[in-house]
Amino acid sequence: MKSLTEHLWFEVPNRRGVINITPEIEELIQRSGVTEGLCLVNAMHITASVFINDDEPGLHNDYEFWLEKLAPHAPTSAYQHNRTGEDNADAHLKRQIMGREVVVAVTRGKLDFGPWEQIFYGEFDGKRRKRLLVKIIGE
Amino acid sequence: MKSLTEHLWFEVPNRRGVINITPEIEELIQRSGVTEGLCLVNAMHITASVFINDDEPGLHNDYEFWLEKLAPHAPTSAYQHNRTGEDNADAHLKRQIMGREVVVAVTRGKLDFGPWEQIFYGEFDGKRRKRLLVKIIGE
Amino acid sequence: MKSLTEHLWFEVPNRRGVINITPEIEELIQRSGVTEGLCLVNAMHITASVFINDDEPGLHNDYEFWLEKLAPHAPTSAYQHNRTGEDNADAHLKRQIMGREVVVAVTRGKLDFGPWEQIFYGEFDGKRRKRLLVKIIGE
Repeated sequence: MKSLTEHLWFEVPNRRGVINITPEIEELIQRSGVTEGLCLVNAMHITASVFINDDEPGLHNDYEFWLEKLAPHAPTSAYQHNRTGEDNADAHLKRQIMGREVVVAVTRGKLDFGPWEQIFYGEFDGKRRKRLLVKIIGE
Repeated sequence: MKSLTEHLWFEVPNRRGVINITPEIEELIQRSGVTEGLCLVNAMHITASVFINDDEPGLHNDYEFWLEKLAPHAPTSAYQHNRTGEDNADAHLKRQIMGREVVVAVTRGKLDFGPWEQIFYGEFDGKRRKRLLVKIIGE
Repeated sequence: MKSLTEHLWFEVPNRRGVINITPEIEELIQRSGVTEGLCLVNAMHITASVFINDDEPGLHNDYEFWLEKLAPHAPTSAYQHNRTGEDNADAHLKRQIMGREVVVAVTRGKLDFGPWEQIFYGEFDGKRRKRLLVKIIGE
């Protein structure tokens, strides 16, 4: 069995943002030498997501508006978590909707993807350096 | 390490629908020859889900009603994504709630499932042929 | 390839509750002898979740309040599923938001986690014994 472990770092300049990380994941799969296996990509921070959807800016705006409706940032006093001195309780909720991780198939040395699938890092509490983990296993 | 890769095709006649795919997954696990391992099942389209829950039609109707409340299809003009000529922005949102994929354990050559667990393909933008991926690895 | 399969049992005394299971998962990873691999942790019941977030009681109260707003328990007659004699339709919905499973990386024999990541069992229909599954594969 082969395996590869890698951390990717991000610093999103705003509170929220979406970054397409598909090219980085493709490259890591090639570097791993795995031709048949599974690849886990997960946020290592609990106010961020990794998810797969469409690389279409209008859709990303729709997500922003929708998540803000389902789990609004303000009033920050509405959340008990924010009594700890944080103001990011909403980010912990948004991340549950969008998910912590994706597991993707590696087939013949490549991401086994449908035509529109792209992997995104979703930041809900940015303006600081945060990590995600890529773990590839297979043979 | 053994592995098996298979695509399953669906054409749901309505915009939305739910299909129990557990028997197909069980059969693929048997065919793979894997006795201990992991099985990934994911939608390859970004307006569909794979999820595990109860095979109870009343519950499926509850999901339909609930998802339509959380992410309504109409008015389609409420979504920026639909300015691209699509009318399926809601489907991209519903799929985030229900999830892209499941990872299930294979133990002694079978799905290692609780008493009510069943795997479903959830379609949110149907009336056309769409695929899902099954990837089984183990030994 | 090595693998380990284990079931953990819980009986949450109330309808809903959250239990930190990180120490149990760490111990199982050590017992498995896997140093590089993947670990799947999933609820085997369809009204419970496994998720990763912060071990902060205020946040857990925020989840409770938020999930009850998105998928209220009452009126139970609002759900078709409850016509089967159940009163737990809301639990099937809440579990979709919080997720069935997590897949986590095992690196150098340990959970490969960010600073605040903790694994939780989330119960939405308690007062009875329920199981979760841990499956570790790797080498």
